[in-house]
Amino acid sequence: MKVDIERQIQQSAEETAGKIRDLLAARKVFAVNLISSPGSGKTTLIESAIEALRGKKRVSVVEGDIETDIDAARIRKHGVQVHQINTRSSCHVPPFLLLSALDHIDLDATDLLFVENVGNLVCPAEVPLGEDLRVVALSVAEGDEKPLKYPLVFKTSDILVITKTDLLPYVKFDPGRVKAAARAVNPRVEIFEVSAVTGSGISSFLERIEELCGRKTG
Amino acid sequence: MKVDIERQIQQSAEETAGKIRDLLAARKVFAVNLISSPGSGKTTLIESAIEALRGKKRVSVVEGDIETDIDAARIRKHGVQVHQINTRSSCHVPPFLLLSALDHIDLDATDLLFVENVGNLVCPAEVPLGEDLRVVALSVAEGDEKPLKYPLVFKTSDILVITKTDLLPYVKFDPGRVKAAARAVNPRVEIFEVSAVTGSGISSFLERIEELCGRKTG
Repeated sequence: MKVDIERQIQQSAEETAGKIRDLLAARKVFAVNLISSPGSGKTTLIESAIEALRGKKRVSVVEGDIETDIDAARIRKHGVQVHQINTRSSCHVPPFLLLSALDHIDLDATDLLFVENVGNLVCPAEVPLGEDLRVVALSVAEGDEKPLKYPLVFKTSDILVITKTDLLPYVKFDPGRVKAAARAVNPRVEIFEVSAVTGSGISSFLERIEELCGRKTG
Repeated sequence: MKVDIERQIQQSAEETAGKIRDLLAARKVFAVNLISSPGSGKTTLIESAIEALRGKKRVSVVEGDIETDIDAARIRKHGVQVHQINTRSSCHVPPFLLLSALDHIDLDATDLLFVENVGNLVCPAEVPLGEDLRVVALSVAEGDEKPLKYPLVFKTSDILVITKTDLLPYVKFDPGRVKAAARAVNPRVEIFEVSAVTGSGISSFLERIEELCGRKTG
């Protein structure tokens, strides 16, 4: 019984994700589903992207949080379109809430859509959002064994961004070990190492996003 | 329909948590449910507790992870009882798995039981485990607005431990702001600031755990 219900919920999620995918295809919008634990630097990555791609790609943002519009307020200061979802009791952004959120974004004025998922390395990994690219962020403060302990999100992501590399001198974190662990669960994952504080690695990551976005949006 | 199923699951969880509570009461075991995001330092806190309380409280540990027994292997080196739960698709330790895990722990040889939950600041907050004390850990690398964005875990926890304070010079984190945010959602929360690297604050936190444990176990 429980399994049946779960299957129905999953089917319904996939159907709604399909509708999102069709909508984004029709409007030529490239969508990035950004997943990480709380505090790994998702919002900061989006802020960097907005500034670096200004005049090149029109960026819009959907912010997913359980409560508050703290992140949307941060993004709004950069002068781009942003819509805040509050998921309340849900541990991830469900597709139906993203579909509704897209009513509030002018997709014809958008090339690149960031969906910042709820801070959670577990649940968002199970939920398709019709995205073109799934990016998982992991800060060096979180430990280098995480891809083994939380495999699904690393397995289903196209890109792993290792963030806060400026903290490397102060924490026990071996980038080689996390890369090996990530590739063990997902051999095709692309990996970038960045620091928003020093700016290191940010441009390589964003050039890759711009390139992938360009393939869809021209 | 979905709501009915969710209510049944919640009722069943509460019943099983009640069984765990009764069992722990009968065996005079004080149980701590330790919750945080991945990499906030839960396992390290437990390791500190084992060493600091050696000869005073008999510590046992149940490790909850989606996959791997990395954490159980770390704990085992300290020579205490430990049992690993792998939750697979579950984003939290469910009570029925904890109840089964307790078959593998000699409770008559245990004063203080740590249950390390799955690394997730969201889902474990909703799930009662029959614990005596709920502790949430938040590292200074995660940001000081987290109690507002993830209120339930801060609202339902008895103690907040701010970890990795040795990183404070290198991150943007205002301990006063996080304390105010935590107390806004939970006025009765006790707050400790610790660093496993320097040892700062660890003894105050563990003295409090020992005191609370002593009230139940004598």
